[in-house]
Amino acid sequence: MRAERMLLTGSRRRTVTPGTTYNFAGGPSMLPASVLAQVREEFAGEELAGESGRPTILEAPFSSARFRSLIEDTELRLRRLVGISDEYVVLFLQGGATAQFALVPLNLLGNAGRADYIETGYWSHRAIEEAQRYGWINVASSGAASHFSSIPKPDGWRLDPRAAYVHITSNETADGLEYHWTPDVGSTALVSDMTAAFLTRPIDVARYAVIYASAQKNLGVAGLTLVVVRRDVLGRAHPHTPSTFHYARQADARSMLNTPPMFAIYVANLILQWLDREGGLAEMEQRAQQRSDIVYAAIDRSDGFYRCPVERQDRSRINICFRPANNDLTPLFLEQAMRHGLLNLAGHGRIGGLRASLYNAMPVAGAHTLAQWLGEFARRYG
Amino acid sequence: MRAERMLLTGSRRRTVTPGTTYNFAGGPSMLPASVLAQVREEFAGEELAGESGRPTILEAPFSSARFRSLIEDTELRLRRLVGISDEYVVLFLQGGATAQFALVPLNLLGNAGRADYIETGYWSHRAIEEAQRYGWINVASSGAASHFSSIPKPDGWRLDPRAAYVHITSNETADGLEYHWTPDVGSTALVSDMTAAFLTRPIDVARYAVIYASAQKNLGVAGLTLVVVRRDVLGRAHPHTPSTFHYARQADARSMLNTPPMFAIYVANLILQWLDREGGLAEMEQRAQQRSDIVYAAIDRSDGFYRCPVERQDRSRINICFRPANNDLTPLFLEQAMRHGLLNLAGHGRIGGLRASLYNAMPVAGAHTLAQWLGEFARRYG
Repeated sequence: MRAERMLLTGSRRRTVTPGTTYNFAGGPSMLPASVLAQVREEFAGEELAGESGRPTILEAPFSSARFRSLIEDTELRLRRLVGISDEYVVLFLQGGATAQFALVPLNLLGNAGRADYIETGYWSHRAIEEAQRYGWINVASSGAASHFSSIPKPDGWRLDPRAAYVHITSNETADGLEYHWTPDVGSTALVSDMTAAFLTRPIDVARYAVIYASAQKNLGVAGLTLVVVRRDVLGRAHPHTPSTFHYARQADARSMLNTPPMFAIYVANLILQWLDREGGLAEMEQRAQQRSDIVYAAIDRSDGFYRCPVERQDRSRINICFRPANNDLTPLFLEQAMRHGLLNLAGHGRIGGLRASLYNAMPVAGAHTLAQWLGEFARRYG
Repeated sequence: MRAERMLLTGSRRRTVTPGTTYNFAGGPSMLPASVLAQVREEFAGEELAGESGRPTILEAPFSSARFRSLIEDTELRLRRLVGISDEYVVLFLQGGATAQFALVPLNLLGNAGRADYIETGYWSHRAIEEAQRYGWINVASSGAASHFSSIPKPDGWRLDPRAAYVHITSNETADGLEYHWTPDVGSTALVSDMTAAFLTRPIDVARYAVIYASAQKNLGVAGLTLVVVRRDVLGRAHPHTPSTFHYARQADARSMLNTPPMFAIYVANLILQWLDREGGLAEMEQRAQQRSDIVYAAIDRSDGFYRCPVERQDRSRINICFRPANNDLTPLFLEQAMRHGLLNLAGHGRIGGLRASLYNAMPVAGAHTLAQWLGEFARRYG
């Protein structure tokens, strides 16, 4: 079941045979090998950790010098990497992007009590459903009628001039769409769920009022939600907003109103170090383009054996959603792919089909291996 | 600065000299050595983890067979260990106990719109402040007038017969008080923040409607909040309750409405395995009693050199709060204790003084070492 590989025993380095495995999971997803090596060091170290040993990052008080400098360093690295000015606060919260589906309206609807949402697939739909419990939600545009095969053109968006904000989902993880442009919503606050695309390309932060992202795609592990908020929209929170999720209160408390998700912040710091070493967001963008070009090309040259329902201009570089034209082949594909070392290629549970998630940690070689396999499978069953 | 110790190189076992270190942090706090050894194994393994290797627990999808069986096993182990019947749901949430200060009223106030709270120290005070934003909160009794030196006797509690629930804080981590009895509140739902005392003694679950606890004391690491809810109080949530923190919705979704805090659940599972191996809650109770008896005895036989403000019958077995009668000695005490290998003995930031937190992972030897040191310091500066 498991692909053959060679391990250099007694060494942290390793060479892999062509039959190596790749994890295409939608998230939680693969981490860079060097980041995992650092996690290993934390728990190994020269002195063994635990009872009566050096406290590990799991055991330090959050008020300790070690953790305080860790969270400060993480914020600083993120600000530098992404280019986040002092006009914005950076919050390290819990609950996932899904919690933000409620916490964005709780924190931002304010007196306006209304907001615009753009529906582009499964995740924006969930965001809309959740927001509807907090105010008047205007679905300013929806791709539902065309089965989410494209992102609605902004000239057709029916924006409400009284809206407190406009919400977009910069990448639809389950449907495979991505905004390759930033909407112009005038003076209204633009809010983006960037979860899957976050840190995969440079971001013009100044165009947004709020950016949020779960960490388990490109910023480490589940349990941490990053929220970047422009200071001028703090102060609008509904009195029902729990303090631990209240943007202004957590900003005042530097995200330490209570114990933060320390291990996930520790891993995020390692990821940010890794991004620096690898060349930053411009390099990530270049790799994301390269990986996705390789896989889409394999789909497109299959003479219709595989189909990707998303129009080319809106295809996600991060989550490639497709299926065999003969959908009966999907289970066979998944089983054989796994034997081939290509893991977790099933589509989102509610969508079906196939999905290849190509986050920052995925080597370009993983995309090549997948593309080769797509060709092989198509030749065998086409 | 660091206590002398011997390491058996090339082996996972270790012997420690008498000069070993102990971590008395209020939480996050020390983990059992054998649990840390298992975490180390997860990241070491026979095959190296990461890019193109065996996915670690950090990288598996939460819908994977591995994670699903992990979360099911964790729930089952907890039910068995604590004795939680099917009348209750077990939720694995995020946000810490502090988030529950808002989420308990959001989920439970219902049409009654009012609740009783017992104020016994810093943490119940914070719970009250937060709850007041959601309804009419009756502080049915408060120890504030006597500076939280004891838990108010229940015959003086002015309970509101219309209250949706009565909230207690079973252990005041910052003040060092603990309920050694379960209040009888008639047919009203009893809600307990058990964070620090959870799993340190058997619990008569049937007496409670809701029990909640942050994991970073006795159930592993920060980022996981355990909430045990009796099914009959599930349908009362306010429409503003975010879905990810909505008890009934998360119960329906088996805590997987979105990605759960997977690593923290993984560590909780290891802790539950450890508790089974060590002899369960009766054994934990016996150890907690023994550890705290040792430390309180050292304080009480210091002829007033150290003072513990809490009346004997309400002293916490878990967080021992005390200070030198001459409070000027506190910084010196902390510095010298650290050199002696006794870490994180500072009191809670808002309270000051000293605090020794003695969670399940603290060996009885740690309490002995602390007691000896208390005597030594008193002889030196008394």
